[in-house]
Amino acid sequence: MRVVDLSHPLRTGMQVFPGDPQVRISGAASVPADGFEVAELHLGSHSGTHLDAPRHTVAGGAGIDELPLEWLIGQARIVRLPEAAPHSTVSWSQAADQLTGLAAGTIVLFETGFSRWFGTERYLSHPVFDADIARILVAAGVRVVGFDTLNPDPTPDPANPASGSPDGASALPFHDVFLGAGGAIIENLANLAEVTWPDPQVSVLPLRLAGVDGSPVRAVAFQP
Amino acid sequence: MRVVDLSHPLRTGMQVFPGDPQVRISGAASVPADGFEVAELHLGSHSGTHLDAPRHTVAGGAGIDELPLEWLIGQARIVRLPEAAPHSTVSWSQAADQLTGLAAGTIVLFETGFSRWFGTERYLSHPVFDADIARILVAAGVRVVGFDTLNPDPTPDPANPASGSPDGASALPFHDVFLGAGGAIIENLANLAEVTWPDPQVSVLPLRLAGVDGSPVRAVAFQP
Repeated sequence: MRVVDLSHPLRTGMQVFPGDPQVRISGAASVPADGFEVAELHLGSHSGTHLDAPRHTVAGGAGIDELPLEWLIGQARIVRLPEAAPHSTVSWSQAADQLTGLAAGTIVLFETGFSRWFGTERYLSHPVFDADIARILVAAGVRVVGFDTLNPDPTPDPANPASGSPDGASALPFHDVFLGAGGAIIENLANLAEVTWPDPQVSVLPLRLAGVDGSPVRAVAFQP
Repeated sequence: MRVVDLSHPLRTGMQVFPGDPQVRISGAASVPADGFEVAELHLGSHSGTHLDAPRHTVAGGAGIDELPLEWLIGQARIVRLPEAAPHSTVSWSQAADQLTGLAAGTIVLFETGFSRWFGTERYLSHPVFDADIARILVAAGVRVVGFDTLNPDPTPDPANPASGSPDGASALPFHDVFLGAGGAIIENLANLAEVTWPDPQVSVLPLRLAGVDGSPVRAVAFQP
């Protein structure tokens, strides 16, 4: 079994979505004092590499524990978009030629190369994805889509919170379409360039958090 | 892909190992107020179905993020021990006939049926596993072993904390051998009886918690 780690490390003080709960990991027991070590974990449902359930943007929608597990482990297609510029919008036409012959249920992952900026201010200036991509993937039977960025939609500048939401438009048009159709979105993927073989298997299984809107995941690509 | 969930749900106030951090899940943002829902997660590194890294009982040992991912997804063998009584000790001879012809690197999971008591006081009265089993599995090249109980070693009665540690002996003899050899232990598995096909594939990938001694996991069995 060959396995590539598609996840960023989780550690105290790491970068999170502006306004999200901070990650804090602290000791709760230690080998010298207690005979075993235990840690206390404080994090958000969207810390690090994570999965969004419909409930993230659909009030009362399905929680992360209600997603069929069969959707979250299986065949993937990686779309390489090395030219995606900061703050640009990726349109369907830029991705279409890498999405031909897609089987229903394929996990579709978009690589922009922006994961290299994780942990820096520049990471907030990621490209975004046109909601038409969400509509076409939903129509093709895709249930899970992932990105090596913080967000397929514009991320507000923390110094100017209205910046993510153009006047009158939804602030989260890609999320609205894809989660609105009952799908799930992976954000903050890492190391997609290391998946060098075609048609990888991918696992993005969330923790079984009852009724929660999202979960950190250990995303991997594997080749049996 | 057929997938069986081997994980207990994570929710506020659920049963944890006596003295471990409590699980508390609370809202941090909501669709009506913020346009999206986010939760804050407080839990321990051993909450629910989880993986122990060597560092759990070996001071300065490998953290959960240092385990090779290849160990944690792959071929498994399930050992069925329906007669294991509360507080009894399972010996190698009881398991040996189900562990013949084991390939190095196989993930070995023990089913006692005790997962049905998860969340009750009775769950603390689980059977335990002789450290000779750990020695023999290590010698056979097994790196990951799992249980549908709280602990392969005796769990102290919260009303009598010394009860888990016989006079002068290690309180964690199975852990000491298996983690001491650099392996990893899964605890609180669920639903092993639902894995009805031979030689299942299993995934027990932990979160990528930097330098931490353990991690909650979404354990699954799958059949491509």
